[in-house]
Amino acid sequence: MRIGKGVEWAAHTCALLALLPPGSALAGDALADFLGVPSPYLAKQLQALSRAGIVAAQRGAAGGYWLAQAPESLSLWDVTAAIEGTAPSFRCTEVRRSGPCGASPAECSGPCPIAAAFQRAEADYRRALAAVPLTDVIAGVAREATSARKRRIRDWIQQHAAHRA
Amino acid sequence: MRIGKGVEWAAHTCALLALLPPGSALAGDALADFLGVPSPYLAKQLQALSRAGIVAAQRGAAGGYWLAQAPESLSLWDVTAAIEGTAPSFRCTEVRRSGPCGASPAECSGPCPIAAAFQRAEADYRRALAAVPLTDVIAGVAREATSARKRRIRDWIQQHAAHRA
Repeated sequence: MRIGKGVEWAAHTCALLALLPPGSALAGDALADFLGVPSPYLAKQLQALSRAGIVAAQRGAAGGYWLAQAPESLSLWDVTAAIEGTAPSFRCTEVRRSGPCGASPAECSGPCPIAAAFQRAEADYRRALAAVPLTDVIAGVAREATSARKRRIRDWIQQHAAHRA
Repeated sequence: MRIGKGVEWAAHTCALLALLPPGSALAGDALADFLGVPSPYLAKQLQALSRAGIVAAQRGAAGGYWLAQAPESLSLWDVTAAIEGTAPSFRCTEVRRSGPCGASPAECSGPCPIAAAFQRAEADYRRALAAVPLTDVIAGVAREATSARKRRIRDWIQQHAAHRA
């Protein structure tokens, strides 16, 4: 089981955008520079976040991205779902119906007990991520950061954030 | 996020092996036939289950596979870990250390709050699967199966299980 790097990048992106002053935006290249990741690949994650309604975008010279929702109502599950989709990670191919002793349709009114157990586990996983709003992530970062780093981040944002048209 | 078909096959394999009479084994081809899956690919899952100490194998004419552990002490997490490995699905690349405002090593004594949240979610996922012993899966299948199907399964096992040397 593997979650792509895109989720990590998207989560850091949203945490940074949550720090923008109201009415401002951050260009894709500046975001990529802040995170130290390649801009063309981050652009894909930004597109996915935009499609999911998590970030909003504005084109042009003063263009850029900003959070389209309040950070306290955006969870790590929202970000993960935007990037990885919501298809279940365990896809039941109904093995129970195959072979010489396969179950009849009447015996398969409920999900296969194996698939059901994976569904419950995945629901637990999603619930745990849904319980972490972006504000918790930011609070966690703030706890670990020195005041010098917090100041550097504030200065960097002030330098790179553009007013939205 | 995606779990391979191998996990589904391995779980069904173990559930079937749990029904074998003591001292008997089932050939890989017979197992594949019962599940209606291609034998060469199932052989890979059987190898992985064997490496993990979940099944035992015996070569030769009367060769085959059997459960190496009691079904009540084998969980769906054991089976999943044997096939997919135990590497975390979210792999933190320490984005927080990169870029113009990257955190210093001293600020990174704990895990990144984003990585920590995914670790907690994955622990919940594994815990949910670890709470499902093979005996629960078998009880679930037994609940859905008609007595005619249970008899067919018993007969098939009697016909195909070989005494171990």
